[in-house]
This record gives sequence, structure tokens and C-alpha cells, in this order.
Amino acid sequence: MKTALDCIPCLVRQSLEAARRVTAEPAAQERILREVLGWTAAMDLCAPPPLLAQRIHRHLRRIGGGTDPYQTVKAAHNRLAAGLMPELRRRMTAAPDPLYLALRLAIAGNAIDLGAPVETDDKAVRAALANALEDPFAGDMEDFRRAVARGGRILYLADNAGEIFFDRLLVEQLAPAQVTMAVRGAPVLNDATLTDAREAGIEAVAEVIQNGSDAPGTILDDCSAPFRHCFATADLIIAKGQGNFETLSDTCGPIYFLFKVKCPVIAEHAGFAIGTHVLAGAAVAPKPPPNCAIDTEKDAHERP
Amino acid sequence: MKTALDCIPCLVRQSLEAARRVTAEPAAQERILREVLGWTAAMDLCAPPPLLAQRIHRHLRRIGGGTDPYQTVKAAHNRLAAGLMPELRRRMTAAPDPLYLALRLAIAGNAIDLGAPVETDDKAVRAALANALEDPFAGDMEDFRRAVARGGRILYLADNAGEIFFDRLLVEQLAPAQVTMAVRGAPVLNDATLTDAREAGIEAVAEVIQNGSDAPGTILDDCSAPFRHCFATADLIIAKGQGNFETLSDTCGPIYFLFKVKCPVIAEHAGFAIGTHVLAGAAVAPKPPPNCAIDTEKDAHERP
Repeated sequence: MKTALDCIPCLVRQSLEAARRVTAEPAAQERILREVLGWTAAMDLCAPPPLLAQRIHRHLRRIGGGTDPYQTVKAAHNRLAAGLMPELRRRMTAAPDPLYLALRLAIAGNAIDLGAPVETDDKAVRAALANALEDPFAGDMEDFRRAVARGGRILYLADNAGEIFFDRLLVEQLAPAQVTMAVRGAPVLNDATLTDAREAGIEAVAEVIQNGSDAPGTILDDCSAPFRHCFATADLIIAKGQGNFETLSDTCGPIYFLFKVKCPVIAEHAGFAIGTHVLAGAAVAPKPPPNCAIDTEKDAHERP
Repeated sequence: MKTALDCIPCLVRQSLEAARRVTAEPAAQERILREVLGWTAAMDLCAPPPLLAQRIHRHLRRIGGGTDPYQTVKAAHNRLAAGLMPELRRRMTAAPDPLYLALRLAIAGNAIDLGAPVETDDKAVRAALANALEDPFAGDMEDFRRAVARGGRILYLADNAGEIFFDRLLVEQLAPAQVTMAVRGAPVLNDATLTDAREAGIEAVAEVIQNGSDAPGTILDDCSAPFRHCFATADLIIAKGQGNFETLSDTCGPIYFLFKVKCPVIAEHAGFAIGTHVLAGAAVAPKPPPNCAIDTEKDAHERP
């Protein structure tokens, strides 16, 4: 999807929050904010919001000497999620429909998002998980169930640290399909990387790969060739979170988007109210680009 | 007060909202937003936020061929306020302490603010007035009562359309002082102008003057000489709303600020939580500029 005008104030706010994680020095925070405003004034709104976010966060990491300003908060989110797992596993064991519960818990875990204008404190995250089945849900569960039952190779695009623990519950329900989980190729915002996948024990239940990109979403042109090959040949793609939806919603393919609607722009683009748990299949993915034919879509992603 | 870094995302958001009032054309809205981002990247943060807002709204009125993009919503706020007046007058008649009730109603009316990140629909405004005495209050009412009882000449700096109806209730309680109410010199945002003062019937209870400026606050250097004279010679100044607080909080003088705290930046600067009804006397006005002596303050405002 394109960057909406409403994304701009939100990106500026996010940049200020990020600048404060990089430096405690107000003058340095101001310099970063002014640079971001300058870029934003000239940005290409045809690109999805994660492209500007990628640029901002790259710059912030450069200023911070390569250290990840989100490392501490990501570790805290992983600890929080790990602490919630025993209770969630109990719920899974007792669930009449484990695939459905796992799906809802994975979407509820999408509450952990430092990019969106939402509360992400421990209390909010605990409440999101506890109420996972009460939040409004939009999606064709039976269609998803059939797609999963066909088996084959499933590519699961992870979203955030912490959240990735709950993704594991869903991955475990996708057997007998062979699951590959892709994480970002480098730290950006609080997005999950290889370290987080390992902490969540994903390697015990799926192959884990990096997508080769440091965008907080999946910008195919920016991803590695091995990742793109995996994307183009998967039988089913599960794309988690708003960032992956923003960057892939115009891409043709056997994609299911799983996310919680957290801002008015996504609400309008996806067609669901804020707070909704969305399971949006390929049929719901709006506006395929012109000349995007179903039978050539895989080749289309195989750009060098 | 200076513009805080947190004011920047808010000003960008406000600019987008304003651009949408000027034109329904997305390309024109985008052009306006890009200009604002460019200005903001280079703005002087030592100036108060209303200075940048003044520049933005001047530009918007120019684009709109001089028409006031807020005219419709201001008229609606005036109608809403007028409709609430009979009930408020009944409450005033029954009040054991009419000065205090009028003060709280005037501050509650400050809920009508299209610049701040708050709800200003009819329901929110009605609720704000209904709960005027329940909201937290910070200020020395007895000190204010004594200042009013000394009489003399009171200059009342109005804030917004609609809200100005409730200011009238307070003005009526300021007798036997002679009250002059100052409104903005030209339309800006939803700030009250001469038209709104007339609609609220202020001329029946006070002299009404314009301040000669189109800033959504009181930037003394930008105001007319007659207004500055009135400001410098008043026995008491009542400055209504966040905009007047932002522009005058570092100014010495016999000023009482009356406003509802509506954003985190003001909350920190004023030292009160969001939602608080504030009556901040001169003693609370923080950080007088260097060399601002009490006995020379009036001359200091008499710049040509």
C-alpha cells in the first residue's frame, strides 16, 4: 500500500520516540527529528510507510554506532512472552479447536508493536492475550483451515520480538506442512530477528531464515535472492503484522495476512475497524497491480 | 514557552487536518503537508508553537483565496454554546459561589479546541460543561477572588469560538471591574474573532477589542500598539486557553492563565496532569525571562 498522508504525523512521532532511545541529548534528538522532517517533505508517497521507517531506523543505528536502540525493550518483550507461555499452553491443551485458538493468540500477540500508536506495556499485552477470543474477528477461518490442510511448504513471515513466542503456537498447528519462518535480516524497530526466533525456540518447530532486509515489513526488492525464492515457491504464505500487510497488500500470491488493526489508515485500507483481528486471504488483498496475472506471479518476484 | 519536540508531530497532524478543511483534493493536501514539513524542519524551536501555527494557517487561508476554512465549524460551535446557555444560566442563578462556578464553566468551555489532540464533538463539549465542577482543579481561588475584588481594569484574552459564550458568564462576575475582552485580529484556527464576540453578546458586558494579530495565541510583538498598551496598563489580565499560555507563560505581568490541560507538553510545562482545570497566577507563570523586573514590566511590552 501507498503511504497515506495520515502516516506522516505518525512516522514523525515514531521517529521522535526512536531518537529518544538512541540519545538522551535533546540537541541530538532535535537534529534527528529535523533530518526526518526534511526527508519526509521529499518522500515518495507511492512507497509503503515501512520504506521511510527503514531509512529512519538505519540512520538512528548509524548514529548509535551500530548498536540496536530497541535491544533492551525487545529482550523485555521476549521475557514477558516467555512468562505467558505456560498459561497459553494450558489453554491450547484444553482448546476444542487448537488451530483457531493458536491463530487468535498469534494475532493478539501482534499487540506488541512499537511502530503503531498503541499501548504496549505489560498490562496491555497481558489483556490482549487474555481477551484474544473476545476481540472482533474478520476472516474466513474455514478457507484458512483448508489451505493449511493441503500441506506443502508454508512460509511464515514473523513480525515482532515477544510476539514471535505466540507465533510458535500457531506454527505447531500447521503440521504436516513444512514451515519456514522468516525474520528480518537485521534489527529494525522491535521487529523479530534470528536472536528472537532462537529465544522463542522456533528452530525446534520450523526452519528459520533471514529475509536479508532491515525494513520493518517485507519489501521484496530489498530482500535476499534466497528469501525471494522461498517466497515465490511457497504453497502458502502467512504474513504477520501491519508492516508485512503494508508492504505486501498489493502483491499477488497465496498470502494470508494476520494482524490486529491498530491505526485508522490500516483500518480504511483493510476495511475493518480498529481492534479487529484480521485473517485476510489473497482474495481480500486489495488492488493487485496491473498486469499481475495469477499464473506468472511467482516469476514476478524473482527479480535479480 | 518554547516549542517542544513533542509539539512537532502534533503540529504536522494539525496541519493535515487544516489542509483537509481547505481543499478536498488529495494532491493539494499533500503539497501543503510537504511545505509544512519543510518549514518545520527549519523552524526555530525557541519560538512558541503558535508561531508556526500562525504561519501554517496564513498560508492555508491564502490558498483558499482568503476564506476562513474554520468558518462552518466555528458557527456550529457558537450554535452549540448558545444552546447550552439557558441551562448554564439556571446553574449560575442557583450557585452558592457564582464566581467559582463561572470560572469552572469558562475553563470547561476550553474543551472546544481544534488545535489540541482532543475530542471536540458536541457530546464531548456537553460532557465537559456538565462535569465542570468534577474535573480536577489546580489554582488559588482565594487569591484570584482578591485580585478580582480590587477592581480596576481587567483585560480578558479570549480563546475560541463557542467557548467565548462561557467566557461571558465569567465576565459578568468580574464587576465592578471594567472588563475589556480581546479577540484575535483575524481568523486563525477556531479562535474567536469580533464576529464570535458579537454572537456571544460580549459587547453588552464588556468593551471588545481586536489584538491585531492572526496568531492562535498572544504574541505581543505581533499585536497592535493599542492592544499592547491595553495589555501593559491592565490591572489584571485573564488569559484563556493553551495558546495564550504557550505564548505568554514567560511574560511578567498580573496575569491569570485559565485553561484545561489537553496535551503532555502543556502538562509538563504547567506541572499539572492532563484534564486538570488550571487557574495559574503570575506566581505560577514559570521562568520569567532574564532582566524582567516587576517594576519595569509594563514598559517592556511597549515596543513599537
